[in-house]
Amino acid sequence: MDLAELREEVCRVNRMLPVTRLVTMHSGNASGLDRERGRLVIKPSGVDYDALVPADLVEVDLETGEVIESRLRPSVDLPHHLYLYRNMPEVGGVIHTHSNYATAFAAVGKPVPLCLTAIADQFGAEIPCVPYVDNIGDHIGEAILQYRNRSPAVLLGSHGTFAWGESATDALKAAVMTEDVAKTVLLAMQLGQPADIPPDEAEKWYDRYHNRYGQ
Amino acid sequence: MDLAELREEVCRVNRMLPVTRLVTMHSGNASGLDRERGRLVIKPSGVDYDALVPADLVEVDLETGEVIESRLRPSVDLPHHLYLYRNMPEVGGVIHTHSNYATAFAAVGKPVPLCLTAIADQFGAEIPCVPYVDNIGDHIGEAILQYRNRSPAVLLGSHGTFAWGESATDALKAAVMTEDVAKTVLLAMQLGQPADIPPDEAEKWYDRYHNRYGQ
Amino acid sequence: MDLAELREEVCRVNRMLPVTRLVTMHSGNASGLDRERGRLVIKPSGVDYDALVPADLVEVDLETGEVIESRLRPSVDLPHHLYLYRNMPEVGGVIHTHSNYATAFAAVGKPVPLCLTAIADQFGAEIPCVPYVDNIGDHIGEAILQYRNRSPAVLLGSHGTFAWGESATDALKAAVMTEDVAKTVLLAMQLGQPADIPPDEAEKWYDRYHNRYGQ
Amino acid sequence: MDLAELREEVCRVNRMLPVTRLVTMHSGNASGLDRERGRLVIKPSGVDYDALVPADLVEVDLETGEVIESRLRPSVDLPHHLYLYRNMPEVGGVIHTHSNYATAFAAVGKPVPLCLTAIADQFGAEIPCVPYVDNIGDHIGEAILQYRNRSPAVLLGSHGTFAWGESATDALKAAVMTEDVAKTVLLAMQLGQPADIPPDEAEKWYDRYHNRYGQ
Repeated sequence: MDLAELREEVCRVNRMLPVTRLVTMHSGNASGLDRERGRLVIKPSGVDYDALVPADLVEVDLETGEVIESRLRPSVDLPHHLYLYRNMPEVGGVIHTHSNYATAFAAVGKPVPLCLTAIADQFGAEIPCVPYVDNIGDHIGEAILQYRNRSPAVLLGSHGTFAWGESATDALKAAVMTEDVAKTVLLAMQLGQPADIPPDEAEKWYDRYHNRYGQ
Repeated sequence: MDLAELREEVCRVNRMLPVTRLVTMHSGNASGLDRERGRLVIKPSGVDYDALVPADLVEVDLETGEVIESRLRPSVDLPHHLYLYRNMPEVGGVIHTHSNYATAFAAVGKPVPLCLTAIADQFGAEIPCVPYVDNIGDHIGEAILQYRNRSPAVLLGSHGTFAWGESATDALKAAVMTEDVAKTVLLAMQLGQPADIPPDEAEKWYDRYHNRYGQ
Repeated sequence: MDLAELREEVCRVNRMLPVTRLVTMHSGNASGLDRERGRLVIKPSGVDYDALVPADLVEVDLETGEVIESRLRPSVDLPHHLYLYRNMPEVGGVIHTHSNYATAFAAVGKPVPLCLTAIADQFGAEIPCVPYVDNIGDHIGEAILQYRNRSPAVLLGSHGTFAWGESATDALKAAVMTEDVAKTVLLAMQLGQPADIPPDEAEKWYDRYHNRYGQ
Repeated sequence: MDLAELREEVCRVNRMLPVTRLVTMHSGNASGLDRERGRLVIKPSGVDYDALVPADLVEVDLETGEVIESRLRPSVDLPHHLYLYRNMPEVGGVIHTHSNYATAFAAVGKPVPLCLTAIADQFGAEIPCVPYVDNIGDHIGEAILQYRNRSPAVLLGSHGTFAWGESATDALKAAVMTEDVAKTVLLAMQLGQPADIPPDEAEKWYDRYHNRYGQ
């Protein structure tokens, strides 16, 4: 994949954020990384998703964090994307959102418990919740690294979510499923106390999903 | 109906799963059976619904469970579809989803009670909830057979729903109505305790719906 | 307005039922009356809304309740529509739905209280809830007449809603607003106890809406 | 910007009200001000949004409140828009809605607490709730002025919301974000008690959003 294809993919993923109801107005952003070339592309700050074209995306040097000639400014969340790419070598796509149900858990500082087979499938663990951190320096990135488990998503206390994957497209699936399972679990909690799936059982679903599912 | 028509119908029903908001990303599948020919067709595993065409569906022999020449792998839930077709002779369509409101009941292991005339109409009974079972062998199918009542849908504890009907189209209606009544009942439970409809009263609605309703 | 125009309007209103999310699958119906000619037109039973054309609607004699030459059978709720038209001389349109939030109140047998200015505007009173009645004879119609207040909508216990107006278009507005205010009030009840608007205050909104609002 | 452009913008913003799910049927209105010319344009009363064209908007003199030759009557909420423009010199756009989640807070007379970074970003404070006032004279406008903080939105007890900004487009963003954060906070309150963000922390987000965010 060259950088033009990466721009196409990251543009498409950003445009999917409002379509999949993960963002309202401008409250989210997606990026993708070309690790070989050491370049990422990310959404520009505060612009509408539905008018976004690949050329609008901002290209950034992974090592220096410097913007490569761009007429638009990058998302203010760029430092957090950079931190995750620099510290998680397997990651090629990152998404940040304030999606409603996941952020409801974040607002009360609670993880989404591993109580559904869908959570075992995709996340293989609870979706952890990082205590509140401010937006200064690498505080957000450091907290994510400290609290993450094998799940490709975390909740940020009083804030929202970060999700990731091998590509921006994979990160989108993780972000969409984070909101989807958060919704089901929140609804379930209005009916009673959902039981956790024991680790041995969770492994059966995670294994099937990661080893036998798909094409 | 020949197999080409069956492919058309099952493709259309699979494409309706995200449209009717029963699935998010790839979390559901529909199949249909030609009982005379002993063949079913089912969604391929982990593919997008909106690009699905009839030729993508995977044809499977009902008796042997073997895939009939296909470039795509079938849904990992194929064994459960097979089990239901083999053990419920009146069934010609099966759908599995993790739809949010129905799965909320499943997460706490509770049935959707028979407390609405719409439930009496369509289901004629509460929608039962099977205790959690794993995805090994026929565990899911056996549990469904053990717990089902005359309702064309069951909830799977900590997991989701299975719904069925004479055709894939009928199964879709059962799956959509399962989610719809689960939503109304969950909302009602936030306001108080909905009263069950007594069996004699439920019979009036079930009878009208199954004997005088429609064309 | 002649009968062809009435068919156009009632067809359009029926097609709006799923668009406005008042019905799922086939769970609702709209009718309209030409009181001068003594004829109503109503949705046929169990057919899809999005394929409905004016010629599909079933014409019925208001006095005798007999269907006027039609290739389709009328909604099984026809007797309730007839009863309302025969007993509410000001009404020219009737809608029945199982819309989720309004039916949640119906499931627990509670009215939607007059606690929002939007309820004072449109309904001028709480939206009352009729205790459960069966579908035999005129039980539904009689119960509605007994429990209604000046609000153009009632809830039917364990069942759903009926709404009406001078025309099918007006009935649609009443049905949509019933669901909308039921949603807001149910949500409010998760936050605390909404205070009723006193009758004198409610009158200010009802008066403005009915006498100075609109064109 | 001339008045024709203002009509275009205010028309577009009004048409976005149902698209962004802030209004149901006709329950909301947007206006925009040309302060130099002393003229505002506002939605006509009780008309459909999707058929609205710029020429339908009603032009009003800011000082006298008189309608400038128009074939349609202005929104009945015109006096409240006028009051806000006359008393908030920085405001160029105003929106009134009964959006569901925000109005749920209004129904119980509670503010939306400053418990999310998204609230700190956009509003910089809790979204306050004005006690119930009637629709007579300037009661609504006076109450808003009395209770507002630096947030560009307030809740009206038992009623709905007013939001504003430098333009109608900015007011739309404030109204959409009011509903969005009200939804997340209401959901969070079903899971526990969201902690407020301390003022010093809130300032970091408000500052970033207002001084470094966007293009």
